[in-house]
Amino acid sequence: MNYKIVFYTIGQILKVMGLLVLLPMFVAIGYSEQFLPYIYTAIIFLGLGFLIAFKKPKDSNMYSKEAIVSIGLAWILISLIGALLYVFSGAIPRYIDAFFELVSGITTTGATILTDIESLPKGVLFYRNFTVWIGGMGILVFILALMPSADKGGLQLLRAESPGPNVSKMTSKLSTTARILYGIYFGLTLLEFIILLIGGVGWFDASTLSFATAGTGGFAPTNASIASYNSLFVEIVITVFMFIFSINFSVYFLILVGKGLTAIKNEELWTFVGIFFLSIILISLNISSTVGGFWNALRYAFFEVSSATSSTGFAVADYNSWPAFSQTLLVILMMIGGCAGSTAGGLKVARLVGLTKGGYVKTRQVLNPRKMYSVKIDGKPQDESYISSLFFYLAVYMAILFVFTILVSLDKQMDFASSFSACVATFNNSGPGIGVVGPMNNYGALGVGTKLALSGLMLTGRLEIFPIIILFLPSTWRRVNNG
Amino acid sequence: MNYKIVFYTIGQILKVMGLLVLLPMFVAIGYSEQFLPYIYTAIIFLGLGFLIAFKKPKDSNMYSKEAIVSIGLAWILISLIGALLYVFSGAIPRYIDAFFELVSGITTTGATILTDIESLPKGVLFYRNFTVWIGGMGILVFILALMPSADKGGLQLLRAESPGPNVSKMTSKLSTTARILYGIYFGLTLLEFIILLIGGVGWFDASTLSFATAGTGGFAPTNASIASYNSLFVEIVITVFMFIFSINFSVYFLILVGKGLTAIKNEELWTFVGIFFLSIILISLNISSTVGGFWNALRYAFFEVSSATSSTGFAVADYNSWPAFSQTLLVILMMIGGCAGSTAGGLKVARLVGLTKGGYVKTRQVLNPRKMYSVKIDGKPQDESYISSLFFYLAVYMAILFVFTILVSLDKQMDFASSFSACVATFNNSGPGIGVVGPMNNYGALGVGTKLALSGLMLTGRLEIFPIIILFLPSTWRRVNNG
Repeated sequence: MNYKIVFYTIGQILKVMGLLVLLPMFVAIGYSEQFLPYIYTAIIFLGLGFLIAFKKPKDSNMYSKEAIVSIGLAWILISLIGALLYVFSGAIPRYIDAFFELVSGITTTGATILTDIESLPKGVLFYRNFTVWIGGMGILVFILALMPSADKGGLQLLRAESPGPNVSKMTSKLSTTARILYGIYFGLTLLEFIILLIGGVGWFDASTLSFATAGTGGFAPTNASIASYNSLFVEIVITVFMFIFSINFSVYFLILVGKGLTAIKNEELWTFVGIFFLSIILISLNISSTVGGFWNALRYAFFEVSSATSSTGFAVADYNSWPAFSQTLLVILMMIGGCAGSTAGGLKVARLVGLTKGGYVKTRQVLNPRKMYSVKIDGKPQDESYISSLFFYLAVYMAILFVFTILVSLDKQMDFASSFSACVATFNNSGPGIGVVGPMNNYGALGVGTKLALSGLMLTGRLEIFPIIILFLPSTWRRVNNG
Repeated sequence: MNYKIVFYTIGQILKVMGLLVLLPMFVAIGYSEQFLPYIYTAIIFLGLGFLIAFKKPKDSNMYSKEAIVSIGLAWILISLIGALLYVFSGAIPRYIDAFFELVSGITTTGATILTDIESLPKGVLFYRNFTVWIGGMGILVFILALMPSADKGGLQLLRAESPGPNVSKMTSKLSTTARILYGIYFGLTLLEFIILLIGGVGWFDASTLSFATAGTGGFAPTNASIASYNSLFVEIVITVFMFIFSINFSVYFLILVGKGLTAIKNEELWTFVGIFFLSIILISLNISSTVGGFWNALRYAFFEVSSATSSTGFAVADYNSWPAFSQTLLVILMMIGGCAGSTAGGLKVARLVGLTKGGYVKTRQVLNPRKMYSVKIDGKPQDESYISSLFFYLAVYMAILFVFTILVSLDKQMDFASSFSACVATFNNSGPGIGVVGPMNNYGALGVGTKLALSGLMLTGRLEIFPIIILFLPSTWRRVNNG
């Protein structure tokens, strides 16, 4: 492995993080809160960044191995250092809690250990939601968007950090693609911010809510999540934007460049829309007697389905009191998640489409083993290796989910449903689960080991598994496999 | 499709079932109970059997398609007709309950809808456990063992009905293999029966318990399962035999023919043994304060782990009151199940070994996409297609499990843990789950739709998924795909 390029890449990422930390500082200054914690955190980020990346290595070759290892280590370091701000500011005195909260933000999970969120300094709350926004699109896409000439390994890095089974290069130039992605991301965030402002939400709540929706992270600056606002307007705006941010950004790109028709001929999109509205109808019918009538039910179902499929984790209702069917469906929707190439978490609908079509074809092959069938998605025949990589991904996904469910169930406060749903909610970067970790509860009371395990799950889920588990393979660090 | 050979095969199976029903009749006669229900049921089996298989078709070609369809339909018909005996005898008046109980027996699940088991006629209880014994080895292996010359399609049929990813032909002749399998099965059942007799258990309990252990079906002729006997001797005998029946029968065959060393060089076996004892230790430590000391804990853990891994479902303790960790681990053990080629259910340890090794290799390939690695099991390199078929199987398995968890959670009595564990317990042919369907409860109070869904899961699980889902594919019934 080319260690020099790995160090250099990580160093660059840490430097950028050091600068980004300074933005919430201005919010703190604006509210006359202490600003030193931001300076300290920035110094650590920048110091370490310059220490390991003081000059660009001559051999700047980056293969997928280097890219994957860099991304995995960078996200872990960002989490370890970024958490210090919570400790320095006194907002979250225990380091393990601070670490959990930072990981939850940067991975866009939105699970919290806090009970009294509103008592925190405004700057810290802004920082908390800003981490979600940065984590949503990925810190690397950000760097690629800024760099005039992307490195050779840029695509590998982008691939390692982007949600979904494959990265569609929108343009031939990588930095252009990255800039377009960030442009759409920034534009949509701004649009939500403005709409909320117009609707009478103050700039602080409007900005933090927009960050959390855009990154699908679900941190609200209030104690009772979106229910705190008690406003149908806020609810609808956020519901719609959660939906918007769970759709593949390439759809917006195609619409922008006047290829709306191509954008709409997209099986993943229609499958997602189908799952979305079918789930709303089913849950509405199921809960209507519990929440007082069909219209209330529709309103809650629309919000919670949008929150689960986009893996945001905002809440307007305590679905812990809903019938088991709706709870189960919400847990499964968290597992499916949104579209690839969006900021949503989960397995991604693109994978579900590939798995379903591949599964149908392979089942027919059980009957006629000698006959060859091909899987077509969006009219294009798919590689056999792509389809089998989906089945492999699902198996690893399930194995991790169940192993961690066992580990988390060691926590004395957890029953089976809580353990399983906590793992689903963190692994898919969704946020709250059911039971002990339900939407009106939090993760604060869990044990240190549980918080560490769930933090690991959040990181593993956000980076789509391999960048994290590859760090634990001995063969990754063996000198022999130099390529 | 060659419909004639399908009808003929199903007919032959039904005829054999008609004769087998008469055995429990003698028990009923011995206890001076009514014997007409057995006659009626036998007449329906034999009548339908002769109706659809009155003469052997000239074209007796059987491909995997015909084999799979025959097995799927035959098991459904056996369940539909076999359930009538419960209704005729008045033991279970409602047909849906009778159907559930029959499916649970023949698929070796051991989930029951009965509350007062001991009030049933002895003949019916014997029939109930006899279905487990027949279902354990498979009705087809039985026929193949009896037939002097196995049909051309014999291997296809055997493959469709045998538990595990691949059928090892122990001898070159199929009927010899089938006879050896049944011989081992019969011999071990007899051994358990004799040991129980020697230990002072009456012949009726000894025989029904032996049937249930051998088939890993977990029906006890008592209300409180094995706890009813309050006998350490019975507990130990059954624990040991549950373990014995979850090991690949080819191991016993190899030992019998003096190749014990080859038998022991078996990765599946050692993985199974490892999982088995590790789980016992973990659960013992976890429950020791709940059940009053380590020795009690070890005793319960040994029994319940043996019951879960073998997918038997006997109980000596109400693990509903155990800590979540032990409950979760037991649910996961049910999913893993026993060895391939045993009577145990679940995914099978052979698949777990293949998936783990394949997963490790494929993860390394993420780093070095161009490098080729091969997966070796028992020292032999495995086909890439075998490994990818395992990943495919797991995906279908998980999809079915989660879809049915959603369906079952529609039942107003079920919470998430109960729904999920009921699906795990029936799909893996294990029996009781946790919560509402825990070891000291039963499935009787559930809704008709739930019972039907769980019956479907039991059949799908017992036949390792494809024989049942292929019946629902339109392409199976299209005339074009003639081969």
